[in-house]
Amino acid sequence: MGTILVNDQFLDRENGSVDIEDRGYQFGDGVYEVVRVYGGNMFTAKEHLERLFESAEKIHLTLPFTYDELVARLEKLMEVNQLDTGIIYLQVTRGSSARQHHFPEQTKAVLTAYTKEVARPVADMTAGVKAIITDDVRWLRCDIKSLNLLGNLLAKQEAVSKGGFEAVLHRDGTVTEGSSSNVFIISGDTLYTHPATNLILNGITRREILKLCKEIGLSVAEQAFTLEALANADEVFMASTTAEVMPLVQLDETPVGNGKPGEWTQKLQAAFEEAVQKQCGSLAQTI
Amino acid sequence: MGTILVNDQFLDRENGSVDIEDRGYQFGDGVYEVVRVYGGNMFTAKEHLERLFESAEKIHLTLPFTYDELVARLEKLMEVNQLDTGIIYLQVTRGSSARQHHFPEQTKAVLTAYTKEVARPVADMTAGVKAIITDDVRWLRCDIKSLNLLGNLLAKQEAVSKGGFEAVLHRDGTVTEGSSSNVFIISGDTLYTHPATNLILNGITRREILKLCKEIGLSVAEQAFTLEALANADEVFMASTTAEVMPLVQLDETPVGNGKPGEWTQKLQAAFEEAVQKQCGSLAQTI
Repeated sequence: MGTILVNDQFLDRENGSVDIEDRGYQFGDGVYEVVRVYGGNMFTAKEHLERLFESAEKIHLTLPFTYDELVARLEKLMEVNQLDTGIIYLQVTRGSSARQHHFPEQTKAVLTAYTKEVARPVADMTAGVKAIITDDVRWLRCDIKSLNLLGNLLAKQEAVSKGGFEAVLHRDGTVTEGSSSNVFIISGDTLYTHPATNLILNGITRREILKLCKEIGLSVAEQAFTLEALANADEVFMASTTAEVMPLVQLDETPVGNGKPGEWTQKLQAAFEEAVQKQCGSLAQTI
Repeated sequence: MGTILVNDQFLDRENGSVDIEDRGYQFGDGVYEVVRVYGGNMFTAKEHLERLFESAEKIHLTLPFTYDELVARLEKLMEVNQLDTGIIYLQVTRGSSARQHHFPEQTKAVLTAYTKEVARPVADMTAGVKAIITDDVRWLRCDIKSLNLLGNLLAKQEAVSKGGFEAVLHRDGTVTEGSSSNVFIISGDTLYTHPATNLILNGITRREILKLCKEIGLSVAEQAFTLEALANADEVFMASTTAEVMPLVQLDETPVGNGKPGEWTQKLQAAFEEAVQKQCGSLAQTI
């Protein structure tokens, strides 16, 4: 990753360290974002960075920079690292203080960020991937993009250990989202996805998809659906910043439909590529 | 805190730093313990450190030391810091790796630990403290003493902002525990506390108290109770490693009973002091 960002300092990666009493380290007391970069340009940067400020506000964390200052730092970070296609990871913690549960009055929030080359997962998007289904054991504030990710990790680990790409989570039979994605089903000409409540993270890619549905003529129902509806869906896909529109063609050991990406899903993938190209220019790889 | 422990190294506090990609920092991917020290001796060290191994196992984390090695390091840490009455804080994360949700195969877990002088909260234990009541929004694996503590922090912050010492948490009207403690009510000659399920952390002080109840002739019912039962209880108290047996004499704006610590609670405090003295020697401060 070459150069990293710590607060307003650009440092060599090997100097990227934080204090043992940073509240991010002891409590996961912080928030984060992952921004996709295509051809050296951030995609939906505004939506991601505004959500960072929203997440911070929800945990009573005042970010020690303005929106514009943050953008300028991230742009410079991309530039010094000559990032073409990849991601910017950034997180902000409440900073270091003597350990106490309630929020200290005087701490200096700590921003860390770095870039990473990450290709578009074109092969997986073309063929589709397997997901497993597991319980959603996470907290009730999944609308906050926080560093408390152990529930997500355990689900993803279960998925990977079973040869899956993602874990689809459910609470008592109601599908919420994926361990690091939103989940969508299509039945007939309608797309269903969990509404943006406290039980899911309102993904930026999710929001983009809901806009694209209108463009391609797919009806949208932001309503929760059951595991049974998931099993009976014509098409299933997940969406995330790095995985974009990713067809789920197998759930546990059962194929979805004929086991191939569905037509609506493919239309959304094409529309998504167009949206990216419109914002970031031509793509090095396409589906 | 003078000297700290990082893995098997004893370092000056100012050298206590960890990598920005430590999974503890990015995901809260780790577990911790707080051990009480009285007169230079750890209290219920075995129970705490065994629970650390249990918590680690629940998140598929292999600790890079044996139980005996850990005890030896903590004993040395207390000695070099000449700790008399206080705590040892220790945590273990899965260590540093390129960020991915599933567990990397090759990482080196990172242990950090330090000591801190912390007096017994004798005045609060004598007078009792106020607690507020709020929703339990945490995940469904509260049995794991993990670094994912944002739900606990938000509850504690709410308590402190309202002049409270602790937040009593409930799920849909059923009391689970405190934000950093277990909660107990006494009605007649019976003590009630939430059973040790996935919804609470089975506190070491909680376990000690359940043993002491037998000694002093107080019946124990490990069963969940409602907010209504809480409101109607004769006595209410919380228990934690640092706060020991702490009477809750006010819940939100309502006094508990006559607003003073109850008789059974005081008997438990006395019995707890005896148990500490038996294990650690005479106490510098007593209630």
